[in-house]
Parts: sequence; structure tokens; C-alpha cells
Amino acid sequence: MSQQTQSPRTRGPLNGVDTPTLFATLDAVKQQPDLARFQFRAVNRWQQGTHSRTTIHGFSGAGGEHRHVREFVFDGDHPQVLVGRDNGPTPVEFLLHALASCLTAGIGNIAAARGVTLYEVESRVEGDIDLRGIFGQSDEVRNGYRALRVNFSIKGDAAPEVLREIVEQSRARSAVYDVLAHGTAIQMTVDAA
Amino acid sequence: MSQQTQSPRTRGPLNGVDTPTLFATLDAVKQQPDLARFQFRAVNRWQQGTHSRTTIHGFSGAGGEHRHVREFVFDGDHPQVLVGRDNGPTPVEFLLHALASCLTAGIGNIAAARGVTLYEVESRVEGDIDLRGIFGQSDEVRNGYRALRVNFSIKGDAAPEVLREIVEQSRARSAVYDVLAHGTAIQMTVDAA
Repeated sequence: MSQQTQSPRTRGPLNGVDTPTLFATLDAVKQQPDLARFQFRAVNRWQQGTHSRTTIHGFSGAGGEHRHVREFVFDGDHPQVLVGRDNGPTPVEFLLHALASCLTAGIGNIAAARGVTLYEVESRVEGDIDLRGIFGQSDEVRNGYRALRVNFSIKGDAAPEVLREIVEQSRARSAVYDVLAHGTAIQMTVDAA
Repeated sequence: MSQQTQSPRTRGPLNGVDTPTLFATLDAVKQQPDLARFQFRAVNRWQQGTHSRTTIHGFSGAGGEHRHVREFVFDGDHPQVLVGRDNGPTPVEFLLHALASCLTAGIGNIAAARGVTLYEVESRVEGDIDLRGIFGQSDEVRNGYRALRVNFSIKGDAAPEVLREIVEQSRARSAVYDVLAHGTAIQMTVDAA
């Protein structure tokens, strides 16, 4: 592992991660913790039946307002077997994407910070759910996933145990993993007319 | 509210919901609870940096294997201010879409089941997150959202209190709300080479 002779703080970009800028960002936040406060936002509009569409564009953080390079638009729906029209994945499937993409983004950053070149990272996520919960047919069945399973396959220029540590560090610092594993406070308000 | 004179079980399609088929599906599950067991799946592949791509296609449930009408593909990335390349929303933003689209799908079904015609349903979701958690810079800050807020604006041909009840019933039966509010069991395995 020749990269381990290089000081972490002088490493160049790796795996598509601009490591020097990443370290500079971490240092800036350490000196000015308010920069770490972010707010993400989405606006969803019902289309018909179980089909709705979400737009994601602006967010705040690092002391200011930002916009993604473009407005992102996503549909959600129920599949035909659940009497929807399948205009998009089910909402619960987006949780699987959120989990895998969060863990994988962390793996990309952490590997670069450790000087490990990644060759391939693939994850398969499965979620088990008993719909008697949302159908209101059983008090003993929860509404959401009973269990999620994630299997990572990771290849890189480090020993398998180092690659496993990178995945584990990503899990330990993943925002989505934390929310899905532990839940968070949700406040709902309704304007009805 | 003329629709309240019609028996719920004889109602025709409404709001784009095939209400008779929805009721028939609920009845079938009540008689054969195993039909309610679903498994959703996603496969994610790292692209570069913090960018990854998820495909969603097959799932099982209602006693068999299914495929969405097409393969759905989603990118996740970090924005430029977080040293990503903004090839997609951040993973945590997909949680906002999942929450809004799940609650709204439920509203569509429940309104139709109650014979209420919907005119408009819009929701705005905000999530507050302090990134010192994922940066590993504070043990007192969690990794994930500290709080989520959802504001619904709903218009239909029923009294405001009925519309509010529909939103509340959707919340009480939402799979994504349940997972985000209470968390779930997550098992991770890693194949490293």
C-alpha cells in the first residue's frame, strides 16, 4: 500500500474525490461549527391516485443558501399489484436508494481520505414489509419495514480488512443509516380548505 | 357531501384510484395474510467520488415475483459545497421525497375510500441536520436529521376537518413515516477483495 507513506493531509484527489478541498472543508467547519448547519427541502405535489411528484432544488448550509446545479424531479407511485399505476417506485423503495447511496458516498470519501483506490463498490439492499400494517389489518404488524439488509461488495487496492473498515466507518457516520436505524422527530402541520 | 350517501363498498373509482379493486385487494389480504408479505430491493453501484447510481426493478409480494413496468434509475451525490459533483440529490434528500410521496399516496387512497374528491395536495418537507455528526467532529451531534417538518396543504370537496382526518389517517398508516419516526433493524454484510 504505497499510498500509506504519504501524509493524509497532503494527499491529492483520489477516486474522483477532491481530497484537499474535503480536508479544507472539514477544517473550516471545525473552526466555525455553524457552517455545519444544513437544511434540506423538498416540495411534493399529488398527481392522481397514489402518484405524486417531488422537486428538490434549494437548500441552506455552510452559512448561506444554495441550489443544486439543476432542479431534481422524482415520481413516486404504487405498483399495479397494489392498485397504483407504477409511475415511479414506491416510496419505501426510495429509502433503499437513500441508504445505499449515503453509505456509498461515505465509502468514496473515506477511501480517498485514507489513500485507498477503489475499483468497485456495489450494494444490494432488501427490505421486508408486511402490508397488513398499512392496510390496518393487524395491530401486531408495524407499518414500515420490519428489517433491512445491505450487502456490500467492495474492491480496491487495500487489504480486505482495510476495505471492511472503510465500509464500517461509513456506516458509523452515515446520516441516512442513523435516521433509518434510530428514527427522528417528525412534526406535521396541515392547511385544509 | 353527497358521496357520503353512497356505501363505501360500492363506490366507483375516484381521484384516479380504482377503489373497487383496492377494496377487493384488501379483502383478499384479509383472507390470505401471506399475500401481504412484500420484499423491495435496490442495487447501487458507485460511480466516482460521492456519486452512485441505484436501479430498482424487481420485488416480491402478493405471493409472487413482480417487476415495475420499467427499471427505475436514480443518482445520488453530494453537492459542490460538500465537495461532491451534484450529479443527483444528496441521499438525505431522498428521505424527504420518500416521506412526502408515501403520505400523499395514502391520502390519495384514503380520500377515494371515503368518497372525497381531492383538488390539490401539496407538501413541503424540511430536514435539519448538523454535519458535525457525519464529519466526526462532535459526539453530541447525531449523524442524521435532528428534525423533520412536513406541511400539507390539501383541498377537496369535504370539510376541512375531514381533510385533516384523511391526512392524519395517512400518517398513522404510512410505512415511510413509521420507519423515519421509529427506525428499523438494519443488517449489513461486506464482501471485500
